[in-house]
Amino acid sequence: MSRAAIPVLVIHGGAGVIAKDLSPEKEKAIRADLKQALEAGYAVLKSGGSSLDAVSKAIVLMEDSPYFNAGKGAVFNHDGKNELDASIMDGASLRAGSVANVHKVKNPILRARAVMEKSPHVMLVGDGAEAFAQSIDMPLVDPKYFYTEERWQQLQQALKEEAEKEKSTASPHGTVGAVALDAAGHLAAGTSTGGMTNKRYGRVGDSPIIGAGTYANAKCAVSATGWGEFYIRTVAAHDICARVEYKSEPVAQAANDVVMSAVPKLGGDGGVIALDADGNFATPFNTEGMFRGWIDKEGKMHIAVFVEK
Amino acid sequence: MSRAAIPVLVIHGGAGVIAKDLSPEKEKAIRADLKQALEAGYAVLKSGGSSLDAVSKAIVLMEDSPYFNAGKGAVFNHDGKNELDASIMDGASLRAGSVANVHKVKNPILRARAVMEKSPHVMLVGDGAEAFAQSIDMPLVDPKYFYTEERWQQLQQALKEEAEKEKSTASPHGTVGAVALDAAGHLAAGTSTGGMTNKRYGRVGDSPIIGAGTYANAKCAVSATGWGEFYIRTVAAHDICARVEYKSEPVAQAANDVVMSAVPKLGGDGGVIALDADGNFATPFNTEGMFRGWIDKEGKMHIAVFVEK
Repeated sequence: MSRAAIPVLVIHGGAGVIAKDLSPEKEKAIRADLKQALEAGYAVLKSGGSSLDAVSKAIVLMEDSPYFNAGKGAVFNHDGKNELDASIMDGASLRAGSVANVHKVKNPILRARAVMEKSPHVMLVGDGAEAFAQSIDMPLVDPKYFYTEERWQQLQQALKEEAEKEKSTASPHGTVGAVALDAAGHLAAGTSTGGMTNKRYGRVGDSPIIGAGTYANAKCAVSATGWGEFYIRTVAAHDICARVEYKSEPVAQAANDVVMSAVPKLGGDGGVIALDADGNFATPFNTEGMFRGWIDKEGKMHIAVFVEK
Repeated sequence: MSRAAIPVLVIHGGAGVIAKDLSPEKEKAIRADLKQALEAGYAVLKSGGSSLDAVSKAIVLMEDSPYFNAGKGAVFNHDGKNELDASIMDGASLRAGSVANVHKVKNPILRARAVMEKSPHVMLVGDGAEAFAQSIDMPLVDPKYFYTEERWQQLQQALKEEAEKEKSTASPHGTVGAVALDAAGHLAAGTSTGGMTNKRYGRVGDSPIIGAGTYANAKCAVSATGWGEFYIRTVAAHDICARVEYKSEPVAQAANDVVMSAVPKLGGDGGVIALDADGNFATPFNTEGMFRGWIDKEGKMHIAVFVEK
């Protein structure tokens, strides 16, 4: 599958209920950060860089933004901690790396990549993942780095709702991700998240799970965002690629079938970005909105939040 | 897919290099424990019980045996701890549960099932998984419960080899698992492991990952045992079921393609047990041996260790 290709980059910044607290100013700021991530990732591809580098670059920028539930903008869990997960996969070699439940890692996507490139393992969790990071001289940050007032207030709200109704209405969504096709024809995918507001500690969603939240092979690359439990149960990212490969479905149909049918049939929601080796892609979601953007084969950039026809 | 069926149960007790330390006495004891697990699980099915109950029962008995790398017989990690993983999936409802990196759970498969049935989550890791267990009144055991002299000596050997050669030759294998078809025509799968001797703490293999080590849907159920990293990268259990569903491959061919081709192509090894809704099954492995056994549609029991023609 190593043939020349025209680069494509697709990113997402999470799906869910968006409208209620999205002011025009905030939407503008989010769009600016999506644009910056797209441009930086695409610059890697245009200069002949790998899809893996483009995915890493775009996700690092979204992790550094306070607006997405990943890295700096991560939500708080039930215990008032930020607990981060990320994974990355190289479609050409099927190498993959993942970290889950880390608290002191500024850019979890780079840590996932280090697990892939510098350890014999695919997935490391918790203190073990942080010990590994230190063993390869990747510095840790003070967990206070992840404090943002808005996320803290979201937790307080969720705890209040929980106390009153014994059922949290906190949205389980919010993730960032990227899929890229490079000039060599190679695909890659990555996903990073701060998990769910008010989640119990130790819960792992789909983002760090290869096959569920992230998957890439020679034909297809997927990053998911949504209610993680349902993306695990449907093995959503791999299922989309299996439909492309085994049923010869167009990537848009495969992504649509999983996001609009298989996941909601079980009661879940969310969205994905999916890209094939010809540069075709789809960004289906069954929530009110999904922050997303792409630079397509023609080099055209587009950023969107709600459904567009 | 809820039609009457003749029950089938297939189990495994791990794949890998077996010959060198398998005395006739030990092989006899292992076969006796496999037989006990088969009979107990099959009794559930014969009395009209669910595939989920049969899988749980068979795996609990193998977890309680000192001979398999799961539960009581779990290997030690690099830090001299026993770190256990397990997952279970109900094919009819696509519900699933998983625990990873737990140290004080006697029967991890029951804990994985509790996550599935008593929490809104699919996967819980580490202390969080143990806190959840206590919150639902599931008792924890002293980590000393998992001490066995043989596993401890295996760690000492691996540490010695590592110190001498800077590369551990410890086998990354050893897992137990079960797949079952019940009289209602429902499939289930489960897997439980103690991980790798001398693994770094925090490493998660394929066993607790839905899609990699365990997967079940209406048409197919799979439990894998092998070098976990490669089963994650190939999303092995789900890939077998995707081939059955999307390519209409017989389950034996699908399992064979993944175990004998996709996984070794990347450098990995191991085996799987795979069962379809008609009671057809396969137990391919590309290692020297795989502890395995089944009771088939005719009610015939068979237990095997090495390749049989």
